[in-house]
Amino acid sequence: PMRPYEKDPTKIYAQSFATVRAEARLGRFPEDLQPMAIRLIHACGMVEIADRLAFSPGAMAAGRAALAAGAPVICDCEMVGAGLIRRRLPGTEIIVTLNDARVPDMARDLGTTRSAAAVELWREHIEGAVIAIGNAPTALFHLLERLDEGWPKPALILGFPVGFVGAAESKAELAANPRGCDFVALKGRRGGSAMAAAAVNALAGGISEERA
Amino acid sequence: PMRPYEKDPTKIYAQSFATVRAEARLGRFPEDLQPMAIRLIHACGMVEIADRLAFSPGAMAAGRAALAAGAPVICDCEMVGAGLIRRRLPGTEIIVTLNDARVPDMARDLGTTRSAAAVELWREHIEGAVIAIGNAPTALFHLLERLDEGWPKPALILGFPVGFVGAAESKAELAANPRGCDFVALKGRRGGSAMAAAAVNALAGGISEERA
Repeated sequence: PMRPYEKDPTKIYAQSFATVRAEARLGRFPEDLQPMAIRLIHACGMVEIADRLAFSPGAMAAGRAALAAGAPVICDCEMVGAGLIRRRLPGTEIIVTLNDARVPDMARDLGTTRSAAAVELWREHIEGAVIAIGNAPTALFHLLERLDEGWPKPALILGFPVGFVGAAESKAELAANPRGCDFVALKGRRGGSAMAAAAVNALAGGISEERA
Repeated sequence: PMRPYEKDPTKIYAQSFATVRAEARLGRFPEDLQPMAIRLIHACGMVEIADRLAFSPGAMAAGRAALAAGAPVICDCEMVGAGLIRRRLPGTEIIVTLNDARVPDMARDLGTTRSAAAVELWREHIEGAVIAIGNAPTALFHLLERLDEGWPKPALILGFPVGFVGAAESKAELAANPRGCDFVALKGRRGGSAMAAAAVNALAGGISEERA
């Protein structure tokens, strides 16, 4: 027979977060960002990402204020949206434009990826918004280009594109010059929808039982 | 101004997969499993996971045969379902029972997590199915317990629960005794919805442009 395993959601959570607190170097984060760092670690099972998170000191305050003011969360792909704890985001509009019918033609006309073209449709929603990028480096690059051209600024950019072409570079560009926006980003190749969603969920409230 | 970056989806894909093939140790996989290993690496940005994948040699054939026979894909959470490339899975039913209204009461009655209780509702769909677990260790543990009790067998278990309590242990249990099922699992704490979805997507077809 199998060995016994923990089935109590409360205990699972307590033990998980105790492990993260024991193993991860959280001291470099402002106190209000520590819950986001913990959630990010919890989402990926890697305590060492704490050492690779870049952030602006006001990121948590900016994100919370944006949500409190009714700003939308704009995601680069459906998986990020699917990872949001919607009961913690009552009244928050979640916007994903990647599968908009106009995007393939826009991508062709702009000579870029669908993910980057989908950013074009963020324009009317972006001022003061929370941006969560968990997939495509080209979406983050395209956003930064549009901000350089004078687009209104989002309140917070959560930068977690993943992969081998442009992910590290796009997040390094964001961290080096966040264009006046607050931001959190995981340096390097790692990232993903689960982390982007976890970062948004951290804005929305305390640590709870959604994994259980 | 920003440095130029690659915007051509075809080139992004070619360069990504060339990097994975150059850096990851893929020689230990049967040839038909290599595309799944590549997709898994691509989903998380970590070439080193190739060394930590456990699998049965027939996993790819079993999964492909199951889908070809019309078997459903059963996921432990909505994020896995959201990551599936549905146009590649025409006619495949995607089942996620976690948010079924019966689950909270079942979890209380069974003295376990919602994720584990949701597995109870897999019973009538499970024979010959493809199981994709990308979140909850307790879902994998509960499934293994039910298989030990004589439930019909799925064709393939894709084991990617993530985290600090039970993730490594549940996947080690699966790899040590897959209960007569084919399987692929990432040993240790790492895992997640993106990897579970990537594993299913690898069954469904070649490598393509969904990140672009």
